[in-house]
Amino acid sequence: MNIQTRTRRNSSAQAIAEIRETLGDRLSTSQAVCEQHGKDQTWNPGAPPDAVAFVRDTGEVQKIVRICDRYETPVIAYGTGTSLEGHFSAPFGGISVDLSGMNRVLEVNAEDLDCRVEAGVTRKQLNNELRHQGLFFPIDPGADASLGGMAATRASGTNAVRYGTMRENVLNLTAVMANGEIIRTASRARKSSAGYDLTRLLVGSEGTLGVITEVGLKLYGIPESIAAGVCPFPTLEAACRAVIATIQSGIPVARIELVDHLHVRAFNIYSKLELKEVPTLFVEFHGTAASTREQSESFGAIAEELGGGPFDWATREEDRQRLWQARHDAFWATRALMPGKEVFATDVCVPISRLAECVKETQEDLERSGLFGPIVGHAGDGNFHTVLYCDVNDPGEVERVRGFYERMIHRAIAMEGTCTGEHGVGVGKVKFLDTEHGPAVAFMRAIKTALDPKNIMNPGKILPSN
Amino acid sequence: MNIQTRTRRNSSAQAIAEIRETLGDRLSTSQAVCEQHGKDQTWNPGAPPDAVAFVRDTGEVQKIVRICDRYETPVIAYGTGTSLEGHFSAPFGGISVDLSGMNRVLEVNAEDLDCRVEAGVTRKQLNNELRHQGLFFPIDPGADASLGGMAATRASGTNAVRYGTMRENVLNLTAVMANGEIIRTASRARKSSAGYDLTRLLVGSEGTLGVITEVGLKLYGIPESIAAGVCPFPTLEAACRAVIATIQSGIPVARIELVDHLHVRAFNIYSKLELKEVPTLFVEFHGTAASTREQSESFGAIAEELGGGPFDWATREEDRQRLWQARHDAFWATRALMPGKEVFATDVCVPISRLAECVKETQEDLERSGLFGPIVGHAGDGNFHTVLYCDVNDPGEVERVRGFYERMIHRAIAMEGTCTGEHGVGVGKVKFLDTEHGPAVAFMRAIKTALDPKNIMNPGKILPSN
Repeated sequence: MNIQTRTRRNSSAQAIAEIRETLGDRLSTSQAVCEQHGKDQTWNPGAPPDAVAFVRDTGEVQKIVRICDRYETPVIAYGTGTSLEGHFSAPFGGISVDLSGMNRVLEVNAEDLDCRVEAGVTRKQLNNELRHQGLFFPIDPGADASLGGMAATRASGTNAVRYGTMRENVLNLTAVMANGEIIRTASRARKSSAGYDLTRLLVGSEGTLGVITEVGLKLYGIPESIAAGVCPFPTLEAACRAVIATIQSGIPVARIELVDHLHVRAFNIYSKLELKEVPTLFVEFHGTAASTREQSESFGAIAEELGGGPFDWATREEDRQRLWQARHDAFWATRALMPGKEVFATDVCVPISRLAECVKETQEDLERSGLFGPIVGHAGDGNFHTVLYCDVNDPGEVERVRGFYERMIHRAIAMEGTCTGEHGVGVGKVKFLDTEHGPAVAFMRAIKTALDPKNIMNPGKILPSN
Repeated sequence: MNIQTRTRRNSSAQAIAEIRETLGDRLSTSQAVCEQHGKDQTWNPGAPPDAVAFVRDTGEVQKIVRICDRYETPVIAYGTGTSLEGHFSAPFGGISVDLSGMNRVLEVNAEDLDCRVEAGVTRKQLNNELRHQGLFFPIDPGADASLGGMAATRASGTNAVRYGTMRENVLNLTAVMANGEIIRTASRARKSSAGYDLTRLLVGSEGTLGVITEVGLKLYGIPESIAAGVCPFPTLEAACRAVIATIQSGIPVARIELVDHLHVRAFNIYSKLELKEVPTLFVEFHGTAASTREQSESFGAIAEELGGGPFDWATREEDRQRLWQARHDAFWATRALMPGKEVFATDVCVPISRLAECVKETQEDLERSGLFGPIVGHAGDGNFHTVLYCDVNDPGEVERVRGFYERMIHRAIAMEGTCTGEHGVGVGKVKFLDTEHGPAVAFMRAIKTALDPKNIMNPGKILPSN
């Protein structure tokens, strides 16, 4: 523990005493609670905060931040704990602000296709509350994450190819800034040219500029018809070519997921499917009945032309659910193949023209490194995940995983891509920011210093802590 | 002229001498050139810069900014001069950096549906260069603006309802920051969660944080089929209800423009159309032949249900062009009705559920104020323009226009909207920023101060100059 860490932890004691006056027993310093709030689902060791505050509204967050500002105590926002890059780890101690109790849907404006929710509302909860109005919120990162957390990490997932990411779907935010000021970043207007885009600055800022407490979101009408299906391909390249052709020809595909042969095998075992164990695209089309039929037929023709197929498509809800359930269970399915190992999921994103090459080189690297790492990708965006399995008690394997991981990221950046398409920087990818952004990092730091001069907002994330 | 202005102008002389060493006769101090670079097409009086630098590449912009940084001389980026809010006016003097000579399309990546252009490339030039590849860039603010300028003002226009604004369509930017550093804000990846979103921070920053010199853009395949048409409505409310129903039912309308009876009259005279002089929607659908037919039919049914119609739709290129030409000539058409008056176009944007109410109150206010102000709106976004005509030699009329203008903006903000949907803040709307954003303005200012501590980048725009 270095001097800074020690100082920070001392400051926490005073902050905790004052916060307790407001929150009473909604402030916990129990070891179990703190540990649970400092460690994510991956092999990142994490670090517990000194206390966890279970807040009920923006005003309480403001009180906490004001106290933490006074004592220079770190403030770490916590949603559902489904982050994969150690976003809520507390390497300098401090107060974890658990927003899961802020779970009210504040307004739904059906005519405007927008809503306003507290940061702790999860995407499934929101969709349950919207369904009877024929509306839905499309962003689906897999986990039932909180919408505040999804905004903070600029999350996306399978539907992004059609509906965009949190970047495109957050209308405005309420946030408590480092000095305790509450701001609302924008109005409910669909577009605006009135000043700097603080909404987009906070989306993806991972709690390092402010604590997001409310989120305004765009909504969509539930499509009249949804068609989905799977299509096998002889090679990864052929599958990627089909994705490019699909998007180029303007088919408004809602999801187009690339699944490698290892994942297909895992699905077959875990979800009792009988798919051919080759590179496969899982696709989904949204529209009217006529338009999803037309989209499916056009896609089938493209796939066939590129040596893929047969493309089996299903409009039956039950068949669709089964396919996507298997896709969503990818994590558990591959895990079942590798019992006893720690999982380490990471993602990169490249221009789609480089996707086949990037995935192929990544697979070859895995093989050379003697590692098991099934790949699944949001192919329409050029974004893919490698789910690495590692025996953390085997130093050699840990070393091989680390080496592979760094090469994977540098490969993506070299192909004009990014070190993370949707997981975020957290603590895990801080060291790649300079490589990716070069001189731009200095301006990110200038913004951080200007908005959080005491570095109390989630220190150690995105930018190296000073 | 206050002290600050005087100091600035003295500093310019030294900067000009040094810049001339690099640019030679591409630096102009001619009065005519300076005046042309300080005054836009509206009634804003504007203010000329002290010199205009006609630059050829990012390196030259860097040299200029470094010199201006040294002498604390203002730097004002200039594209095509089509801004409507005095963005390139130089109230503190300084150097206008004319980017129109940076007009190369640097790369087109057809497989990735993206391109990279210098900031001076105009949208028409880009679309001409893309056409043979079956691609297009959809953002269309009407004027043949430069893409750098469109990024800087977060421009949008008629297609935004389907394709988004510059906010959604800029992939990355190259910019020269106030200290002369050149940054690239992001990679070519479609999405990224790697750090603060500097792209979106610069989009809409109106040259106040840096000079945009290159722009990476998303592209789209030219639709197989385009259908367009006009549909009259008995009332504004009915037209707005039709827009809401169209969007709610998921019809992926590409353009849906609300045109008031005054504009229809102007079109009939100027463009020799024979439209019924009532509130009218101009619509356009993109897709396959089957899908545009389906979209048109669905829209026609909605319009009829709301008392509108008949909806005449045309897939013939010639008919479509004639309609949209009339729409694009709106400015000239209404101007022809009011010879000798100065024009003053302004825009606001509200949630679509409030659009009818906002437009109606605005029309009533115009009538009460004895002003002529045809209204046209990107109705799908809740964004509309009032094109005001004013005899600037009639102090009473000037006063009435000003009063009306302020009420229009406050009305939009009160309806949870914004003081500008797409024109930007410039000098004209600085005073409304506090009303719209409240405490958030302090954080905009903190960012401005952190990134441009000497306030040399387009001072006086967006935020009141200190």
